Amino acid sequence: MSRVYNFSAGPAALPLPVLERIRADIPDWNRTGMTVMEVSHRGKAFIETAEKAEQDVRDLLAIPDDYSVLFIQGGATMHFSMVPLNLATAGRTVDYLQTGSWSKKAIAEARRYCEVKIVADSADRKFTYIPPQSDWQLSRNAAYVHYTPNETIDGVEFHYIPQTDDVPLVADMSSTILSRPVDVSRFGIIYAGAQKNIGPAGITLVIIRKALLEPARSDIPSLLTYKIYAESESMTNTPPTFAWYVAGLVFEYLKAQGGLEAAGQRNQKKASKLYTAIDASKFYSNPVQHDCRSRMNVPFVLADPALDSKFLAGAEQAGLTNLKGHRSVGGMRASIYNATTEDAVDALIQYMREFERRNG
Amino acid sequence: MSRVYNFSAGPAALPLPVLERIRADIPDWNRTGMTVMEVSHRGKAFIETAEKAEQDVRDLLAIPDDYSVLFIQGGATMHFSMVPLNLATAGRTVDYLQTGSWSKKAIAEARRYCEVKIVADSADRKFTYIPPQSDWQLSRNAAYVHYTPNETIDGVEFHYIPQTDDVPLVADMSSTILSRPVDVSRFGIIYAGAQKNIGPAGITLVIIRKALLEPARSDIPSLLTYKIYAESESMTNTPPTFAWYVAGLVFEYLKAQGGLEAAGQRNQKKASKLYTAIDASKFYSNPVQHDCRSRMNVPFVLADPALDSKFLAGAEQAGLTNLKGHRSVGGMRASIYNATTEDAVDALIQYMREFERRNG
Repeated sequence: MSRVYNFSAGPAALPLPVLERIRADIPDWNRTGMTVMEVSHRGKAFIETAEKAEQDVRDLLAIPDDYSVLFIQGGATMHFSMVPLNLATAGRTVDYLQTGSWSKKAIAEARRYCEVKIVADSADRKFTYIPPQSDWQLSRNAAYVHYTPNETIDGVEFHYIPQTDDVPLVADMSSTILSRPVDVSRFGIIYAGAQKNIGPAGITLVIIRKALLEPARSDIPSLLTYKIYAESESMTNTPPTFAWYVAGLVFEYLKAQGGLEAAGQRNQKKASKLYTAIDASKFYSNPVQHDCRSRMNVPFVLADPALDSKFLAGAEQAGLTNLKGHRSVGGMRASIYNATTEDAVDALIQYMREFERRNG
Repeated sequence: MSRVYNFSAGPAALPLPVLERIRADIPDWNRTGMTVMEVSHRGKAFIETAEKAEQDVRDLLAIPDDYSVLFIQGGATMHFSMVPLNLATAGRTVDYLQTGSWSKKAIAEARRYCEVKIVADSADRKFTYIPPQSDWQLSRNAAYVHYTPNETIDGVEFHYIPQTDDVPLVADMSSTILSRPVDVSRFGIIYAGAQKNIGPAGITLVIIRKALLEPARSDIPSLLTYKIYAESESMTNTPPTFAWYVAGLVFEYLKAQGGLEAAGQRNQKKASKLYTAIDASKFYSNPVQHDCRSRMNVPFVLADPALDSKFLAGAEQAGLTNLKGHRSVGGMRASIYNATTEDAVDALIQYMREFERRNG
C-alpha cells in the first residue's frame, strides 16, 4: 500500500522526507557503520546530533537564553506530577484552568500534592468553549497557573496567551508546539510530548525558565527533578536517543520549510478550509464556539450518528485513516498537525462532500 | 562505510536482521500506509504488536503467570526510585549489595526514601570481585534485597541467584537480560533498560510478581506506580511505541535463533574466547576475580597505558569501535551482548594479537 492520509491524534503523522531520511540512515548512520540507536549517548556523534536538535528548536521558537531546553522521558503526563512537585511546596495553592479532558487529568494528578484551585471551568458546556479571561478567579498567592492551550479530544484552543502577571504560567503544549510562533518569554514552563508535532512517542520537550529550576521540595525522585536534567544536559541517564534524533530531523525539516511563521500559515489555511466545509453543510457540524476552535484537532459529528461506521469504513477505503473521534466524545475527529498536508485536508473535504451527496 | 564491529556498552549493537526489518517497514508498516511511529497506541495494529512482544518475551524467559510484564519509560534508573517507593514504607530497612558502579547509584537513590543496609560490599578491592553469600549480613526484616547481577563498568557478574528466602529479590538486569535462561520465579522484580539486549534506549522491561503490585505508599506519582502500569497494560499514557516495536522484533529474532539456551551458549563461547586470549597474554590483563567475570562486559588494560590511544585509534581503523573503557575506570572494555557476533570477537582478538606483536 502507498502512504495514506493519516489524521491520527497521536502518535501522529511524520513528514515523509523525515521518514525517508530515517530509512536512509539504517544500517549506517553518518558513515559510522552503526545506526543512531547503537551508539553511546556520550559519544561525539550523538552529542553533536543532540546539540544541533536543541539549537534548531531554540531557533524555531526563538527561545530566550534564560530558558533551559530539556528532553525527558515519560510523556507530557509525567509533567502532571513534575510541575507541582518542582514548583510548589506540599499543599500550596496552584491555579488550574479546566477546559477539556487533558487539563482535567493534569488537575487530578496535581491534587495529590497541592491545593488546586480551578480558576476557570468549561465542563458546564462539555468543554466546547473557553471562559473569557475576565471571568477567571486567579489566586493571589498561587505557585503557578497551569493551562492546556489546545485540547486534542475536545477541539478547543486558546488563541491568546493568558495574562498571569508575576505568577509563572505553565502550559501543556503537546498538541500545538511548533504549529506557529509563540512568545516563550510569557511562560514559566512549556512541556510537550513529542508524538504530535515533534517526533515519535517517548520523548518530551521541556522549556523552562532557569529561575524556576530550583525544586520547591527535597523529597522528589531524582529523575523527576527539572534541575537535574538541566545540569546534565538531559543526560542524567541514557536518554531516548532515537526519538531525540528524529525530533532533530523534524526541527531541521521545519526550519527548511520556512520556520514557524510559514507553518502557522499552512496550519491556518488547512483548519480554515475544513471548518468552512463543515459550517457550509447541514450534514456535518462542529460543536465548539467559533473563537476557540482548535487549529490542530477538528472534531465533527454527522447529523445521523447511525451513519458513523459507514463514514469511517468509506474513509478507510479512500485512504483517509484515523478519523474516529475519541471514545469519550464519539463522532469524528480530524487531527491536522504540521505533517498532515493541505492535500490531505482537500482529500478529506472531497470525501465528506461525496459522502453527504450519497447519504444526505 | 559498511557495518563495523560495535563493542558499545550501551546503547549497543542491534541484530542486523532486526535493523533491516525496521528499514523495510519505513514508510509503510504492515501495509497500513504509515510507519509504526505514526499510529495510535490504542489502535488494533499497534495493540497486536505490543501483545506479541509481551508473549514472545514471556516465552523466551518462561515467565510464570503470576508475574506482570510491563514496558515503562525512564530507563533502569527510574527504578532506582520506583523500587523503594513501591515496595517499602518511608524509612523502612532495605538490603542492597554494592558490587559496582551501578549498584552504588541504586543505593544512593534508595537512601532518599529508606534505611539502606549494605549487606555486601566489594568497594575495598575496587569492585573486582563479589563477596561470597556466606559473608552477607542480610537483615531479618528488609522490605527487599536489591542487587545488580552484572556491572557493566566493572565487568563483574553473579553466576548464581542470591538466596533471600521470603524477602523479595530485586534485580537490575539491564545488562544480562536475555543473554541466557534465568529462573524468573526466584525474583520479586526484574527490571532492565532496553539499550543492551532488548532494543533502543527509551523503554524498560519490568517483570514483577503480581503480589508485589500494591504500592507500599500512597504519596507516589501515578507514573511511578507499578500497579497503574499493570492495570493499564503499560498504556497509562502514550508508551514509546517505536521502542516497544523494536523490542518485539528482537524478541522474535531471538526465538528464531533458538531462544535463550542457544543465546547463552553463544555468549559463553564469545566470553570464553576473549578471556582466554587476555589471560594468555602478558600484554593485556583483566582485573576481575575469575569466578565472577562478566560474560557481557570484558574490561581489560594494556600493560603500558601510554599505548591506550594508539590501541584505540588502530581499532577504529580496523572497524572495531567503542572499545574505550568507562571514564571512571579507564583502559578498554569490550561489551559483547547478544548482537555482538562471534565474528566480532574473533576480529577483536586478532587485532589485539597483532597490536601486541607490533608494540609488545
